[in-house]
Amino acid sequence: MATLQAKSALVTRLLEAKKKSGKTYNQIAEQTGLTNAYVAQLFRRQAQLKPGTAKAFKAAVPTLTDDLIEAMQEIPLRAYDPIILQDPTIYRLHEATSHYAESIKDIINEEFGDGIMSAIGFYCSVEKVKGKEGEDRVVITMNGKYLPHTEQKTTDNVAKLAK
Amino acid sequence: MATLQAKSALVTRLLEAKKKSGKTYNQIAEQTGLTNAYVAQLFRRQAQLKPGTAKAFKAAVPTLTDDLIEAMQEIPLRAYDPIILQDPTIYRLHEATSHYAESIKDIINEEFGDGIMSAIGFYCSVEKVKGKEGEDRVVITMNGKYLPHTEQKTTDNVAKLAK
Amino acid sequence: MATLQAKSALVTRLLEAKKKSGKTYNQIAEQTGLTNAYVAQLFRRQAQLKPGTAKAFKAAVPTLTDDLIEAMQEIPLRAYDPIILQDPTIYRLHEATSHYAESIKDIINEEFGDGIMSAIGFYCSVEKVKGKEGEDRVVITMNGKYLPHTEQKTTDNVAKLAK
Amino acid sequence: MATLQAKSALVTRLLEAKKKSGKTYNQIAEQTGLTNAYVAQLFRRQAQLKPGTAKAFKAAVPTLTDDLIEAMQEIPLRAYDPIILQDPTIYRLHEATSHYAESIKDIINEEFGDGIMSAIGFYCSVEKVKGKEGEDRVVITMNGKYLPHTEQKTTDNVAKLAK
Amino acid sequence: MATLQAKSALVTRLLEAKKKSGKTYNQIAEQTGLTNAYVAQLFRRQAQLKPGTAKAFKAAVPTLTDDLIEAMQEIPLRAYDPIILQDPTIYRLHEATSHYAESIKDIINEEFGDGIMSAIGFYCSVEKVKGKEGEDRVVITMNGKYLPHTEQKTTDNVAKLAK
Amino acid sequence: MATLQAKSALVTRLLEAKKKSGKTYNQIAEQTGLTNAYVAQLFRRQAQLKPGTAKAFKAAVPTLTDDLIEAMQEIPLRAYDPIILQDPTIYRLHEATSHYAESIKDIINEEFGDGIMSAIGFYCSVEKVKGKEGEDRVVITMNGKYLPHTEQKTTDNVAKLAK
Amino acid sequence: MATLQAKSALVTRLLEAKKKSGKTYNQIAEQTGLTNAYVAQLFRRQAQLKPGTAKAFKAAVPTLTDDLIEAMQEIPLRAYDPIILQDPTIYRLHEATSHYAESIKDIINEEFGDGIMSAIGFYCSVEKVKGKEGEDRVVITMNGKYLPHTEQKTTDNVAKLAK
Amino acid sequence: MATLQAKSALVTRLLEAKKKSGKTYNQIAEQTGLTNAYVAQLFRRQAQLKPGTAKAFKAAVPTLTDDLIEAMQEIPLRAYDPIILQDPTIYRLHEATSHYAESIKDIINEEFGDGIMSAIGFYCSVEKVKGKEGEDRVVITMNGKYLPHTEQKTTDNVAKLAK
Amino acid sequence: MATLQAKSALVTRLLEAKKKSGKTYNQIAEQTGLTNAYVAQLFRRQAQLKPGTAKAFKAAVPTLTDDLIEAMQEIPLRAYDPIILQDPTIYRLHEATSHYAESIKDIINEEFGDGIMSAIGFYCSVEKVKGKEGEDRVVITMNGKYLPHTEQKTTDNVAKLAK
Amino acid sequence: MATLQAKSALVTRLLEAKKKSGKTYNQIAEQTGLTNAYVAQLFRRQAQLKPGTAKAFKAAVPTLTDDLIEAMQEIPLRAYDPIILQDPTIYRLHEATSHYAESIKDIINEEFGDGIMSAIGFYCSVEKVKGKEGEDRVVITMNGKYLPHTEQKTTDNVAKLAK
Repeated sequence: MATLQAKSALVTRLLEAKKKSGKTYNQIAEQTGLTNAYVAQLFRRQAQLKPGTAKAFKAAVPTLTDDLIEAMQEIPLRAYDPIILQDPTIYRLHEATSHYAESIKDIINEEFGDGIMSAIGFYCSVEKVKGKEGEDRVVITMNGKYLPHTEQKTTDNVAKLAK
Repeated sequence: MATLQAKSALVTRLLEAKKKSGKTYNQIAEQTGLTNAYVAQLFRRQAQLKPGTAKAFKAAVPTLTDDLIEAMQEIPLRAYDPIILQDPTIYRLHEATSHYAESIKDIINEEFGDGIMSAIGFYCSVEKVKGKEGEDRVVITMNGKYLPHTEQKTTDNVAKLAK
Repeated sequence: MATLQAKSALVTRLLEAKKKSGKTYNQIAEQTGLTNAYVAQLFRRQAQLKPGTAKAFKAAVPTLTDDLIEAMQEIPLRAYDPIILQDPTIYRLHEATSHYAESIKDIINEEFGDGIMSAIGFYCSVEKVKGKEGEDRVVITMNGKYLPHTEQKTTDNVAKLAK
Repeated sequence: MATLQAKSALVTRLLEAKKKSGKTYNQIAEQTGLTNAYVAQLFRRQAQLKPGTAKAFKAAVPTLTDDLIEAMQEIPLRAYDPIILQDPTIYRLHEATSHYAESIKDIINEEFGDGIMSAIGFYCSVEKVKGKEGEDRVVITMNGKYLPHTEQKTTDNVAKLAK
Repeated sequence: MATLQAKSALVTRLLEAKKKSGKTYNQIAEQTGLTNAYVAQLFRRQAQLKPGTAKAFKAAVPTLTDDLIEAMQEIPLRAYDPIILQDPTIYRLHEATSHYAESIKDIINEEFGDGIMSAIGFYCSVEKVKGKEGEDRVVITMNGKYLPHTEQKTTDNVAKLAK
Repeated sequence: MATLQAKSALVTRLLEAKKKSGKTYNQIAEQTGLTNAYVAQLFRRQAQLKPGTAKAFKAAVPTLTDDLIEAMQEIPLRAYDPIILQDPTIYRLHEATSHYAESIKDIINEEFGDGIMSAIGFYCSVEKVKGKEGEDRVVITMNGKYLPHTEQKTTDNVAKLAK
Repeated sequence: MATLQAKSALVTRLLEAKKKSGKTYNQIAEQTGLTNAYVAQLFRRQAQLKPGTAKAFKAAVPTLTDDLIEAMQEIPLRAYDPIILQDPTIYRLHEATSHYAESIKDIINEEFGDGIMSAIGFYCSVEKVKGKEGEDRVVITMNGKYLPHTEQKTTDNVAKLAK
Repeated sequence: MATLQAKSALVTRLLEAKKKSGKTYNQIAEQTGLTNAYVAQLFRRQAQLKPGTAKAFKAAVPTLTDDLIEAMQEIPLRAYDPIILQDPTIYRLHEATSHYAESIKDIINEEFGDGIMSAIGFYCSVEKVKGKEGEDRVVITMNGKYLPHTEQKTTDNVAKLAK
Repeated sequence: MATLQAKSALVTRLLEAKKKSGKTYNQIAEQTGLTNAYVAQLFRRQAQLKPGTAKAFKAAVPTLTDDLIEAMQEIPLRAYDPIILQDPTIYRLHEATSHYAESIKDIINEEFGDGIMSAIGFYCSVEKVKGKEGEDRVVITMNGKYLPHTEQKTTDNVAKLAK
Repeated sequence: MATLQAKSALVTRLLEAKKKSGKTYNQIAEQTGLTNAYVAQLFRRQAQLKPGTAKAFKAAVPTLTDDLIEAMQEIPLRAYDPIILQDPTIYRLHEATSHYAESIKDIINEEFGDGIMSAIGFYCSVEKVKGKEGEDRVVITMNGKYLPHTEQKTTDNVAKLAK
């Protein structure tokens, strides 16, 4: 619990640094070559800032102090307070995936076989587009590697006990 | 509860009809001009088959009997058994949206303002693409209308009590 | 969690400012041209004070300091502590909507079709009226835009992957 | 549990009788002088058909057999399966009341005093109106008697133990 | 949450004032003409001290400072931490009402009709009596107004939309 | 679970027998010398019909067949479906005891000491009285033996291991 | 909640006093003539130190200051954080009683009749014994008064309303 | 779920066989040399009837048919429906262990070290004794092997991967 | 739900076929070249029998009829009834992984980086070994592919919207 | 709760000491002769540092101050915040054991009999290996003593009441 409170306090500081910088997630994404959702995950400590990207990130958001840049490179505990599901924006997202869940599984099974869309080898982005009648629309794209369930052959299993 | 059991029994019959037809969701989607996820929602009774589409649907899936086609046109109760979250395919989807939820809300707020992505005026599709290293990848695209939170001005509120 | 605690602390300050002003929600609503429930939502940080209304709001509640007026213009995380459901006033409201829920859905479906009452394009007001026998009665009016469930035609889906 | 299953089976029969009658809730409401939500509650066994109304009800919905009309006059157990909250129509209603709950309590307290809106001496109706821009809107009106929390004076308490 | 913590801190101060006064709930009840359970509810901030009673209450418990007496006149949020159900005294009470619940409903329905015992127009008292074999017994008496479920006739519904 | 389903089926039969007898709980209570709530508990299989009372009970409710009278003498599993808490009558009862729980404990502690009101050596009755303004009121009386928490002296503990 | 935090802080101080005293629960139990589990309950504020025992307790644990001895004589709220069930020692205890629960009830019913083992008129002790093969074994002995479910005869019910 | 329903149906048959035999758990325990709680566990399918005991068990309860005796020798899934916790007998047992849990852990740690009471190498029995004032008392004795938490030395860990 | 009941019924049939074959999981594993845990998953419908293995599987378990072999090749919904966690064998496994979870994550992060052990590209086996003192020990080996969390570079994200 | 917060604060200090030491879990494990997972458990206060190992541990991690080394020798409350299950690394582990749980139980029952894998007499280690295609793989090995469910013979039960 101390861990989560420390994380939450750190996120508050990161968001303040972003606010001071005057940059949007999209602007930072463009400057760093990262997807916008991933940039937001970095500020929320839901992803690790990779060492090779730290310098570019600091350049894009100069208000991030060195200790914040360092803290962003720690491997995070990925977790959230379930109460955020009450917010309508977040609930609608949860609702869409829950109601479409079995259908999406059906199509993956049919087109790929017995496997899943990885949430680890994964890309997410959020875009603003115009609909047919000129209305604003939110487009969320999730791109995850297909992982087939392994058939567990003993000969392929490198983990064997010494006898 | 009787309602959900009846729905579940109906879904079983619909999926059997699809199996007998030998068609995939993608094939039916192509023939009917609907997104593949939406076609799957129709078989799972998570969406209503619109009267104007019924004929084309029957043509694409001839194994659907008339009473099934009629039943698909009823307005459904959209609901699911929470135990499906245990399946890895479905959990990964739920995990991705839950962990990215606050980030997606942040970007929507920044790019659109105080509002949400509608889950009603909504499109969903599932595609198979090749990654940079030739690996299979699942791409899920969600496209929802942006709805701004209304400022509730009394003069705009058409619902007034008679005095 | 830090976010919710900060919100809660802010709400305490906002309610104190209102108390000092000596104004009721109805009086503020009348002066600002907003519904009374929406005014209360603003004090509870369940809605965003729109920039165009900030000046009028400050005029109606002069005890709100500039930093509070500014804080009210941030986009809020809409959330509540589930323990408030224990309060009889709040429980009765929850009970009424839960017990009438399927009936209201039935009538919406019958009169409008397969769709919902939006909670985003939405107005709410609370009034005091006299009943037939002279008793005080509470009237709550909810006015939400009807949103039909979209039939997901591929041609209407503007979100397509580049190939 | 047996009770709820029996109730559920009865509701299925009642809804079939309504369907056969070809009448909408609004038509039945108009013919019987009841609110449309209350008529729906009667079909869902969430309210008791009063003996004085039974004849008019049978006249409005002739497909209701005598045993159904009799069953509708039993005092029901008012209950629902929590899974119905997953349906978007029902969730939006629940969301609206939950998010506005404290605000509505605040206004009741301010305008009436320390008390509640009764969910028992209560009216509910659902209407279709046109918004300012010609869009369809759902208006739900709840009208409940105000009940003040009693100050418990010993002299007013008629329940005293014999000594 | 801030609200509940503030309430909890206030209750601690109120109970300390009572302790300092050396008075029991029964003594305060006798001096103020209130039921003993209601007096306890006032100290726990589960009821509002009515202005007309404040003076007598202060006289009965002189250790209550003016700011406490004032705070007791605020309308409270009625809520409790569910963990208190673990205490055997509180659990037994909960167990008794839960196990007798359907029986009590049956008798109310049979003797009064389709309605409830109000928890708002309500009196509660706790007494110590001797049983047949001389043992101490606790007697709890609950006295609530009977509220019949309203038949919702359109003509009686004073809440009508202006057309 | 089988046990609870069997119990539920038995309760249905018992309530049908009562209905056929045309007797109310109060009439049966008067004829058998039992409290009315206890009579209802017997029909709900929440209490055991004592052998010495079986004959009088059968006389009061002649529609109870011998096998039912025998089944009522089995020791029951006392349990209920939590969904019954949704019914307003049952919820109000639960609400009253939950909100008054700490107050009632306080008074028991103050008047009796460190102990509880037993829910086993317990009487419950439901009565209809007239209030000061002629209104119908429900009075529920709970009468439970006071049980002090034992100080666990080793010399009083008769359960000792053989050494 | 404030109450539970205060309790928790007090327990910390009590356990520190015990640690400083260098005494084990068994030693304190022997010196005070109480069961060892009850002594531990006193340190955890799950039982009230009886006034007649306070002096002997202070003698056995001289590191307990006077204010701690006084605090131990307050009637406690008996409660625990459910997370302690995760500890293997505590889980095993919970598992044993849960899995044997119906069997123990069966035997009580068979040997005593329709009643329970009281958790109030109750003794608990923990002993270390040697098993048949010389292994250490934990023996927990629970000794509770048998309480028969009362048949609720109206003539025995001393709680009657004055008419 | 099918598994649990099959188990439940089997338990019903086993309890009927016991009822027909006219034997009590104590009588069967005495004849078979098993503890009474363990005998009850066998009938509830919470323990496996060991092959070496099957003959003696059949002799003690001749109404058990051969197929039942065989079914009792299957290794069971040990599980229970959580709703049984509502029964007062079972709840009291659960309450006692939950409230004493930390105290019992404290004493085990103090007397044995860092370890637990096993619920597997375990004995349970239920006895009827007379208290100091002649009252009936239930004594439950739990006797479990002490298991110390292992210090995990690499040299003692026989599970090593082949390299 | 219908899906899960159908699965459960199928598992019952599969386990009966295995029982009739007289083979153990280990024997079938040896004959088919699969890990023993994976063989058990196939009987529990937690894994898909791959077409290329079907013939060998049928040979190893000749009591499996053709329709069962075919049913085992369907892609399953991987799910379980949470009540199985009550069984001590299953709970111990759950306890071990829960209590070691953060430690295992720490070591993975330290030795591999920011990533996870895949549960999809995964092998599991269960072995019986002798401990240092000759005691039987269960060794469970889990072998999962390491998956690093992707840094989401826009240039690597093949899912781009057509513009 | 205070206990868990104190534990959490202590863990933070222990992890800081480890960080300062610059040592990995594997390095400390090698130097102390303990499994790597067990070393991590010591830093997370999920295991007790045994007195005989304290000196070697201090030598391996010199940044651990004496008071920390002493604190690590206290017997811990083994518990975790359930929110950690949201982290993908931890969830995958939980998923693997939950989905394989029944299969593992089946194999234990078949190979050992009616018993469990102990989580107390238990070893856990985490290793990095190369898969067949050169990929990194995580191997977790759990090694627990087999504990057979005891047949509860009265003559073996050393816990007998003195008569």
